Amino acid sequence: MHIDIERLKRTLFELSRFGFNEADNGIYRIGFSAADMAARRWLLQALERDGLAPRMDGAGNVWGRYGPPDAPSVTLGSHLDSVPAGGMFDGALGVVAALEVLRRLKEEQVELALPVELVATAEEEGRYGGMFGAQAIAGELTPGGILGMHDPDGCRLADALEAAGLEPLKALEARRAPGSMRAFVELHVEQGPVLEQSGKTIGVVDCIAGVFKWIVHLIGKADHAGTAPMNMRSDAFMGLADFAHEIPRLIDEDGTERSRLTVGKVELRPGSPHTIPGEAIFTLVGRDTDEAVMRALCNACRKSLSAIARRHKLMFEYEEISWLKPVACSPEIVECLERLAEKRGCSWQRMPSGAGHDTQFMAGITQAGMLFVPSVGGVSHSPDEWTHWSDVETGANLLLDAALELASRGGS
Amino acid sequence: MHIDIERLKRTLFELSRFGFNEADNGIYRIGFSAADMAARRWLLQALERDGLAPRMDGAGNVWGRYGPPDAPSVTLGSHLDSVPAGGMFDGALGVVAALEVLRRLKEEQVELALPVELVATAEEEGRYGGMFGAQAIAGELTPGGILGMHDPDGCRLADALEAAGLEPLKALEARRAPGSMRAFVELHVEQGPVLEQSGKTIGVVDCIAGVFKWIVHLIGKADHAGTAPMNMRSDAFMGLADFAHEIPRLIDEDGTERSRLTVGKVELRPGSPHTIPGEAIFTLVGRDTDEAVMRALCNACRKSLSAIARRHKLMFEYEEISWLKPVACSPEIVECLERLAEKRGCSWQRMPSGAGHDTQFMAGITQAGMLFVPSVGGVSHSPDEWTHWSDVETGANLLLDAALELASRGGS
Repeated sequence: MHIDIERLKRTLFELSRFGFNEADNGIYRIGFSAADMAARRWLLQALERDGLAPRMDGAGNVWGRYGPPDAPSVTLGSHLDSVPAGGMFDGALGVVAALEVLRRLKEEQVELALPVELVATAEEEGRYGGMFGAQAIAGELTPGGILGMHDPDGCRLADALEAAGLEPLKALEARRAPGSMRAFVELHVEQGPVLEQSGKTIGVVDCIAGVFKWIVHLIGKADHAGTAPMNMRSDAFMGLADFAHEIPRLIDEDGTERSRLTVGKVELRPGSPHTIPGEAIFTLVGRDTDEAVMRALCNACRKSLSAIARRHKLMFEYEEISWLKPVACSPEIVECLERLAEKRGCSWQRMPSGAGHDTQFMAGITQAGMLFVPSVGGVSHSPDEWTHWSDVETGANLLLDAALELASRGGS
Repeated sequence: MHIDIERLKRTLFELSRFGFNEADNGIYRIGFSAADMAARRWLLQALERDGLAPRMDGAGNVWGRYGPPDAPSVTLGSHLDSVPAGGMFDGALGVVAALEVLRRLKEEQVELALPVELVATAEEEGRYGGMFGAQAIAGELTPGGILGMHDPDGCRLADALEAAGLEPLKALEARRAPGSMRAFVELHVEQGPVLEQSGKTIGVVDCIAGVFKWIVHLIGKADHAGTAPMNMRSDAFMGLADFAHEIPRLIDEDGTERSRLTVGKVELRPGSPHTIPGEAIFTLVGRDTDEAVMRALCNACRKSLSAIARRHKLMFEYEEISWLKPVACSPEIVECLERLAEKRGCSWQRMPSGAGHDTQFMAGITQAGMLFVPSVGGVSHSPDEWTHWSDVETGANLLLDAALELASRGGS
């Protein structure tokens, strides 16, 4: 059995019109925006047309369904919202591929032991912290959390939900009962360069990396860049530069090939060409798929920064803004996806996900796994985001295979 | 003969009231501002009271004079304007010490072969590029230059001059005829930590460092900090960090102990914690007292940046925003000041000036030299700027000694 790549393409292009901006060719389908809600209504109508049991839950997640009622479901899906100026594959591909799988199952009137569900999750990209819909499904939301959240522009989540026609506290009712789901599989674009560089078509995700974020302060002394000799300075930027220079060594010594350490944002004070920076404030974001490795990297960074601060006569402070643990995918799903990829004869590799995905919350309530297809140039969160159709076809076919396999056997 | 340190203190405190801001204890005597012009009128009145031939030239420089007319002058002075939130010594000390020298010469009715002049220069600190008064005296201004200049707030120099009661193009008439000056000596606070650290009271400046300013662009690729493995990145900030880390080596190999290389301003794009910096734009300011060394440092920086750009897969561009040559002080004045310091029994050292001063333009028309006195903690351009009165006294006495020696002999 195969998916219909031409229909999948048409559907994906149709979806890409919601929130499309002609000025930059970007998609602006921000969580709970008018464009996002219009796309959800469009999906509900498509499911309705095909008799795929459409419904929207209290968190704005859209669901579809094929197969017997009253049995744990094999759920396929991803998110429907986008970042500002996003591309047409991120999230959307996983939703449209799930729709295509349901359509094929329905067309072929396949008899299944378990129902196959589609879910198009809400607000994954971060307007309100991200993965809102998946957190609702996994039962991770609280009333206080829902009522307290606001976006960076100060717009309250409760107001955004009401404007979208949703009742804020009904998001709590989106929780899925334990045992009501047999498995969750998310097809997503890789958003990185690994598959393209290795020449593989499919990535089977075994773990979603954990991530920590620090804000680091190095405080020295702002002096005249002409009058202060090099050896009498307390140059906060030189401390930062020495630290960043050591990042490869820190990873070599205490990390793995899955480790990432990134300095993404830097502010120097006073930030004047003729003044030695008296302060450097920067972010440090670290990732690994092993929490013990994350801790080892933190210790190594702390030691390195302390030594550098002493060497440059700086004060050193840091604040840990967040710590998200790594989430392992279900070994059963990983094994299943790898076996099916092998059977289809496509090239694949096991790999971590460096970015966060809905799957990490779904893993809290069911056997969850992810499939990656290559991103051209590793580009994502950009109008230039692209994945070759042949890779999309392979990925969607594997999703179909996984649904067939997982739904053909009764309860887990 | 000695100066009167109590009178000098009183005069300096009196001057410090012009532009004083009680909110931050800083002095705001910005070039050609009302506070600056009020201070100039105060100085003219003080010179008038003591019969010291006051006048203001077309550039706003205030002059005073003691001794015979119609002979080349020994000129002492510094600037009267301040940076915003400046201290009470920067510039002001050199003016007030020159006034004290003239007062003592007049009190003692010293007979001199040459006149001793005071000059309080205009707009040294940079509102209109800096050293405006000294450039006018040295004949470095042009009508186009005067009429084209505006400050960072968009206020035209011509308007500021007119508001101060000056006719813009009359600044050209401030030029001093060649041969009309026998020597120029400027007493100034060091604005750096060198004298304090060496425990010396007097710095005899032998050269004012040249300075170049680059704006450097490193362009890589902005990627997701989670999905892009460390070895597949083109991280513009990591290129900058590696370059800054090499600065000590570059100076060891191609510079001198007088060299300075400073990265004072950094902008990362997009500048988001979870995104690898695709662009790093930063300033590089270099200094040395030898122009050949400055060129060698530039070459070394270029080579280092090129190699780092290749290693990190970055594009590298830079623009040389300015190149100011080093200016040597007159060997005759340096020798004279050192001999007089030795004679007074004060501790001294020869040293470069890392910052720019009026002296560098005065050196274009006469034998010019500078005396530094220590800055507590190396602090300047701050309300915390301070110099111990005993050091001020020694510096002012040396200025008096220099005036006596240089003005006692006829023509140079």
